[in-house]
Amino acid sequence: MTERVFTACLVIIGNEILSGRTQDANLAYLAKGLNQRGIRLMEARVIPDVEATIVTTLNEVRAAFDYVFTTGGIGPTHDDITAESVAKAFGRPLIENPEARAVLEAYYPAGELNERRLRMARTPEGASLIENRVSSAPGFQVENVFVLAGIPSVMRAMFESLGPRLQGGTPMQSRSLSVALPESVISGGLGELQAAYADIDMGSYPYHRDGVYGTTLVLRGIDGGRLDEAARKLAALIRGLGAEPYEETEG
Amino acid sequence: MTERVFTACLVIIGNEILSGRTQDANLAYLAKGLNQRGIRLMEARVIPDVEATIVTTLNEVRAAFDYVFTTGGIGPTHDDITAESVAKAFGRPLIENPEARAVLEAYYPAGELNERRLRMARTPEGASLIENRVSSAPGFQVENVFVLAGIPSVMRAMFESLGPRLQGGTPMQSRSLSVALPESVISGGLGELQAAYADIDMGSYPYHRDGVYGTTLVLRGIDGGRLDEAARKLAALIRGLGAEPYEETEG
Repeated sequence: MTERVFTACLVIIGNEILSGRTQDANLAYLAKGLNQRGIRLMEARVIPDVEATIVTTLNEVRAAFDYVFTTGGIGPTHDDITAESVAKAFGRPLIENPEARAVLEAYYPAGELNERRLRMARTPEGASLIENRVSSAPGFQVENVFVLAGIPSVMRAMFESLGPRLQGGTPMQSRSLSVALPESVISGGLGELQAAYADIDMGSYPYHRDGVYGTTLVLRGIDGGRLDEAARKLAALIRGLGAEPYEETEG
Repeated sequence: MTERVFTACLVIIGNEILSGRTQDANLAYLAKGLNQRGIRLMEARVIPDVEATIVTTLNEVRAAFDYVFTTGGIGPTHDDITAESVAKAFGRPLIENPEARAVLEAYYPAGELNERRLRMARTPEGASLIENRVSSAPGFQVENVFVLAGIPSVMRAMFESLGPRLQGGTPMQSRSLSVALPESVISGGLGELQAAYADIDMGSYPYHRDGVYGTTLVLRGIDGGRLDEAARKLAALIRGLGAEPYEETEG
């Protein structure tokens, strides 16, 4: 019996990422958070604040993946066009969402909920809100598309609020070993080990630290027992090459 | 007369980025480097080390953009499958490139150019090499697709070696102003200014520093005079709201 794999795609909406002005800080967080829920991030796209591009991209990826997450473009300014673009992608009208308006009314002092801020209450018709405990203005979900903020602290709060709305399978586990040998010395034996463990994804990542060319080897799979077994064989392979493997502590 | 816009797409190949283990460090560098050459990065995709995905993605984006850059997957291990995937995308045979082999032979001490390292001499037939001054194993170009290493120092050296192989237009310039006012206070006037300057892309980016909610406003366009004019109007708009704009020093 093959286990069902739940897949996701991240769409990062923002000229500021594509111009190199801002470094994305959401992909790695989302990848790890999804994995804990048994969902695999299979692709990410960075696209500009251009409605036609957002619409085309969303319609392509929401058909191809179980879950789609977007980040960015849901603030109060003219370049925040994610809500209307999502509405167009789904062929739904863009409405002032009464529930979202109530959230903003409760948050802003009397008289400060101006027309611009009210832009943040707009969602496609029939969307369900995603709570924002940081700065109130909510994200929203339409079918399998989850629209999150671009600011990392807000994006994280929104993602963590999703809870049971994300159904997944068995999380991937990983084992990492590093060794002070260049990739090309280990790669032959590693290739053979990979061939023997088709259910495990073996990655090889060269590093250069303190003048030493080394390699970090990462084994990923859903079966902890198989991972331990493969990691033991990998450690034996490394010792056979006259080196000593050490475990990576992940950040 | 409208100026021709040169466009580019970056394809980041690597399970380690999609698992959240590694943070991409190439997008921002490439975006800025391309802009200096008058080429605009319009999209980036992060995809796994899966041949079918690489082939499909490459064939889609090389038809849609003037230039395509890939990073990752050109090392000596079993998970380095970029060269064969690019060959498949172009329908060309994968060969041992004699020029690439000569480069590796000159770099490695006698007897150390093993079978695994020779994998790094493989390119699609007819590819032209991209020099790697850091660790010798070259990247390569096929038509409008430039295949670069994933390790940032190597990727940068390869990109800088391209010189006249990248033809572009007029670089985008930018002007940045920051102000200690929340986005939603400025957004009305900013939207009007954007409407008056259709040739300038105006971005608004909220920040939260030392307890202050502020906004950085970025104007981008190819005409420095128009940018200066729009920036003066923006500064006047901010002063009209009772605040003082300050210039951002970019990193």
